[in-house]
Amino acid sequence: MHMTKVLVAVAGASGYAGGEVLRLLLAHPDVEIGALTGGSNAGQPLGALQPHLVPLADRVLEETTPETLAGHDVVFLALPHGQSGPVAAQLGEDTVVVDCGADFRLTDAALWEKFYGSEHAGSWPYGLPELPGQRELLAGARRIAVPGCYPTVSTLALAPAVAAGVVAADDLVVVAASGTSGAGKAAKPHLLGSEVMGSASAYGVGGTHRHTPEILQNLGALTEETVRLSFTPVLVPMPRGILATASASVREGVGADDLRAVYVSAYADEPFVHLLPEGQWPTTKAVLGSNSVHLQVALDEDAGRAVVVGAVDNLAKGTGGAAVQCMNLALGLSEATGLTTVGLAP
Amino acid sequence: MHMTKVLVAVAGASGYAGGEVLRLLLAHPDVEIGALTGGSNAGQPLGALQPHLVPLADRVLEETTPETLAGHDVVFLALPHGQSGPVAAQLGEDTVVVDCGADFRLTDAALWEKFYGSEHAGSWPYGLPELPGQRELLAGARRIAVPGCYPTVSTLALAPAVAAGVVAADDLVVVAASGTSGAGKAAKPHLLGSEVMGSASAYGVGGTHRHTPEILQNLGALTEETVRLSFTPVLVPMPRGILATASASVREGVGADDLRAVYVSAYADEPFVHLLPEGQWPTTKAVLGSNSVHLQVALDEDAGRAVVVGAVDNLAKGTGGAAVQCMNLALGLSEATGLTTVGLAP
Amino acid sequence: MHMTKVLVAVAGASGYAGGEVLRLLLAHPDVEIGALTGGSNAGQPLGALQPHLVPLADRVLEETTPETLAGHDVVFLALPHGQSGPVAAQLGEDTVVVDCGADFRLTDAALWEKFYGSEHAGSWPYGLPELPGQRELLAGARRIAVPGCYPTVSTLALAPAVAAGVVAADDLVVVAASGTSGAGKAAKPHLLGSEVMGSASAYGVGGTHRHTPEILQNLGALTEETVRLSFTPVLVPMPRGILATASASVREGVGADDLRAVYVSAYADEPFVHLLPEGQWPTTKAVLGSNSVHLQVALDEDAGRAVVVGAVDNLAKGTGGAAVQCMNLALGLSEATGLTTVGLAP
Amino acid sequence: MHMTKVLVAVAGASGYAGGEVLRLLLAHPDVEIGALTGGSNAGQPLGALQPHLVPLADRVLEETTPETLAGHDVVFLALPHGQSGPVAAQLGEDTVVVDCGADFRLTDAALWEKFYGSEHAGSWPYGLPELPGQRELLAGARRIAVPGCYPTVSTLALAPAVAAGVVAADDLVVVAASGTSGAGKAAKPHLLGSEVMGSASAYGVGGTHRHTPEILQNLGALTEETVRLSFTPVLVPMPRGILATASASVREGVGADDLRAVYVSAYADEPFVHLLPEGQWPTTKAVLGSNSVHLQVALDEDAGRAVVVGAVDNLAKGTGGAAVQCMNLALGLSEATGLTTVGLAP
Repeated sequence: MHMTKVLVAVAGASGYAGGEVLRLLLAHPDVEIGALTGGSNAGQPLGALQPHLVPLADRVLEETTPETLAGHDVVFLALPHGQSGPVAAQLGEDTVVVDCGADFRLTDAALWEKFYGSEHAGSWPYGLPELPGQRELLAGARRIAVPGCYPTVSTLALAPAVAAGVVAADDLVVVAASGTSGAGKAAKPHLLGSEVMGSASAYGVGGTHRHTPEILQNLGALTEETVRLSFTPVLVPMPRGILATASASVREGVGADDLRAVYVSAYADEPFVHLLPEGQWPTTKAVLGSNSVHLQVALDEDAGRAVVVGAVDNLAKGTGGAAVQCMNLALGLSEATGLTTVGLAP
Repeated sequence: MHMTKVLVAVAGASGYAGGEVLRLLLAHPDVEIGALTGGSNAGQPLGALQPHLVPLADRVLEETTPETLAGHDVVFLALPHGQSGPVAAQLGEDTVVVDCGADFRLTDAALWEKFYGSEHAGSWPYGLPELPGQRELLAGARRIAVPGCYPTVSTLALAPAVAAGVVAADDLVVVAASGTSGAGKAAKPHLLGSEVMGSASAYGVGGTHRHTPEILQNLGALTEETVRLSFTPVLVPMPRGILATASASVREGVGADDLRAVYVSAYADEPFVHLLPEGQWPTTKAVLGSNSVHLQVALDEDAGRAVVVGAVDNLAKGTGGAAVQCMNLALGLSEATGLTTVGLAP
Repeated sequence: MHMTKVLVAVAGASGYAGGEVLRLLLAHPDVEIGALTGGSNAGQPLGALQPHLVPLADRVLEETTPETLAGHDVVFLALPHGQSGPVAAQLGEDTVVVDCGADFRLTDAALWEKFYGSEHAGSWPYGLPELPGQRELLAGARRIAVPGCYPTVSTLALAPAVAAGVVAADDLVVVAASGTSGAGKAAKPHLLGSEVMGSASAYGVGGTHRHTPEILQNLGALTEETVRLSFTPVLVPMPRGILATASASVREGVGADDLRAVYVSAYADEPFVHLLPEGQWPTTKAVLGSNSVHLQVALDEDAGRAVVVGAVDNLAKGTGGAAVQCMNLALGLSEATGLTTVGLAP
Repeated sequence: MHMTKVLVAVAGASGYAGGEVLRLLLAHPDVEIGALTGGSNAGQPLGALQPHLVPLADRVLEETTPETLAGHDVVFLALPHGQSGPVAAQLGEDTVVVDCGADFRLTDAALWEKFYGSEHAGSWPYGLPELPGQRELLAGARRIAVPGCYPTVSTLALAPAVAAGVVAADDLVVVAASGTSGAGKAAKPHLLGSEVMGSASAYGVGGTHRHTPEILQNLGALTEETVRLSFTPVLVPMPRGILATASASVREGVGADDLRAVYVSAYADEPFVHLLPEGQWPTTKAVLGSNSVHLQVALDEDAGRAVVVGAVDNLAKGTGGAAVQCMNLALGLSEATGLTTVGLAP
């Protein structure tokens, strides 16, 4: 018995997020790839822009218009921040629209305006099914906001401890080493290979990175306590991957076993979140190209802090993989269809 | 008028620390390079082991014995941990001995035994001249313990704020992204290029890294308060460099300008510590091969934390450069002789 | 209607070749993964050695013995050179044995002994289906020798021109830039990340690399002419991928269009070999993790040489992907089952 | 007795070539750094653009005009191709002008126009002192054209064999793996870190790269024979360094010892060209930041080709180091002043 294939369009197919969505859709058994659109790249064959997507090499990018995107069951938006709102407004209510951008992630309009400097477009169901209750919200949803890459791993690293109350929520610290693809494909001097190879650098220090309020929003929903977070992203010389080191003051009386038990319990049934065996620490290489999040926890008794390290592929589970996972949920497909837990290593 | 050159020996010349000491000594105008010794590499020409040290290519490594090291004005020890003690014991009291290893860094024998698992050899003047009063201790010293690479940048990043009391000393957090050369030249599978390229990973998490007590010792000397530190080293795909992100809860009433003023004041006269102009963040590339430490500070008011980012070359200022700087102080030479603030970029 | 799954064992599951075979088999719909064996790693869980293979993390490596490998439909050998012969001799004649090592690649015993320094084990059907007539030999084969990584791309780059006689076969030059995983997972100092990052180096120069006779054997079968080859491998700082630059003196009267036509014709029906559109040059990134070989050709009229550039993933199409492709042919499955042309980029 | 310092200006101080000249000049004992000029970056402090040049951090870039460059003893031009001619025309005849660009390298106007597509500005003494007779031409010169990075290492790799006639000059092949800084600091998508890390790619294939005629010009001056060259540059993931693999058909009767003797003889007295001991192959890491060229030769008897591998830092000896070396010659200073043979490794 055959299921009719789902017809999917990707707006912004020439960028890193759009390319990753397409890479994953090419392995999805229930999907037919329809319109591919671009901005300044419209008119070019995809093969010239995304040479790794061999089966789509001859497909020509169209303009991102309501007409080109019409008639699809699912539309992925992989557009620069601020552009998803107007495009989404012209898509049918029954169309599943999955936004890889930030436009609909934040519920608080004031925070949006503070961090993004433009008018708030609204908020959509947040595409992190691993959060309590979130999977149910996404089932059947027709508008979904894919989380940011840093918020994905930072939230999953801290959520169990915050929700269980085994750490103080008001002194969270996350330092996250990231590959460069998170910064996108627009050519900027500080992202040149000559600059990033052999170098590490921090940016968005002091609470100014746009993903800070998103992480706070996620964690704040899990506790009555005040949530405060010092978040520092660090650019390191690799194309993909984020390794987040998260820590928090541990509550008195909470031991290493208690801490670990909280994580075992939180993720026991999650297909994509893997708490590694004790003594084994995450590496971003092990999750490259996959939808996996690898976690490990430690209790530093001298410092009085719980430390959680998480690894994710910023483009896969951190963007495109989450987008496909959410599409599966929205359409009632098996959540893991077309996705893998297996990374590309070495 | 000529000064007689200082005759210098390097024990452990085939490793990364020994190689870096030699690289710098080759640019030092007042030094003559004498004996070079190795362990299992004794008998080999240095050119086969350190092909970048062209002027020394034909020098053959000798055994590390009292005889080969005798008769030198200065002996640099760049040996595996635990080996410096016995060697140093056989060197004359007037010989300047600069130990690049950890053996003589910690004053607390119990901490040494806890973290290094062997008997404590003692402690020597600590080779971080930028700490208050330390430069004076090093002038004329005949035994010097070069700081660890992580402690160098972590201490310099946090010392001014801790000493000035503008942050709480009992909740310090440092996450430091490091190049791989800090792990040395012994071949281990997880340090293979195939494993580290394209990957980031944490290790020594939860307060278990050996540099943790060293940082605590340094900072504890600056305050009456209890000092607590969560320290996490992260291996990132670059051969050299450390980027440390340090943070601490800021005292009420301390503003961004106050915080910055503390750092301006602390390092105004330091030749090798550079607080970057506001808005410019350190990159490890800018300090490669140099004795510079680049710092920047921010106050995250929402999180209530001061964040300090520091960059250092783990082998240069983090090891070999500090060793040469300390030798200069011990001998009464100008402190910066043979050293540079200029990095190799891009 | 269900097909019974093929039961597969992998000997040498902890190395790079074995890991890649497993990565691909995990995506193969017709395969059930049976015994996994290791050498010194026997007894360890695979998750500690290959953390990217999440679904197999709890599988424990067994010893490589006839007993552990018995009872499988297919056995992949991913062993150090020289070990495949004895193991294969104890496997049933009906078992499909696919050797990722070099043992059975060369037909000439004297060449084997010259380059590998041990007794010749024999030769098996050569697993490069893209060579003329080779696909037919592999259909139903029970013993298959997977090509070396350099020979795969070098042969595919030069075969059409040599076979068509548009270049002189006696002055071939190949310089191939390779990632480090081709050198395997055994820890050697010159393969440390600290040594390879930021550096390029040649090795096996002057015709001494073991893959030289293999390339000559492949090309020699396509022409009556004498075949001579200068082959130089170059280690470059990336974990995976080979970019081969091959050139040969072009015959008088052969124009750029003639040259291109030879390649268009040779690979028109090949599922995994892609001659890129004119003006677009291969990158190894576009083929990472895939079974694709990307090629481009140019005629340098001033130099009188045809230049062919080819990109391959040394572990995928260069080893594990070819192994799975050959298994498919041997079993009568569709050749591309479980394989992809889509690379992981960026 | 003091020598008056030489006053030096650098036009194009914000680019990679200009930055490297300045890095070296900061270590030059006889130089005072005067005007620094930029194009679109004029008005900015150098510290924001070249943070590794700490002693110059507060120097503000001026416009590149005759007025700003007037009054200097030496002017280094590190400008985009085509811009050096007009600037140089306005500098005094007694000023030493060292052009790091290509404008004055080629003597053949037709070749210039073919490869650069603009009007030929003329030709200046070519700044490769290691070529026969060239050092004498540069002594006292007032206009010097610094060689391209690929031509430096390619020429030095092949010149002795071509000059001695031990190889055929009409079938030279060079494949050169290069770091990305050779492509400059202008932001282009294919040079992004995300694109180049983990990837190798060829470009300028088929004799189209602009450095091809320059290499031919150099080698053609050494022989009566026709010189033909297939040159292919390959971009590999490192910021600096070129590893060139050069080969040529060896003359009958020429043995490995003969070949080596030619190189020993050619470079015995050269301070910066090092023929490595037999069996040791060049790595770019060993020459980083230095003025060294490391060479090794092999005779492949089966292939009938001599193979020469050379390593150079494209920015140091490949650009800025050669520029300083030539300045020294022009001014009558010791040729190696301010330069080093010691690389920065690991």
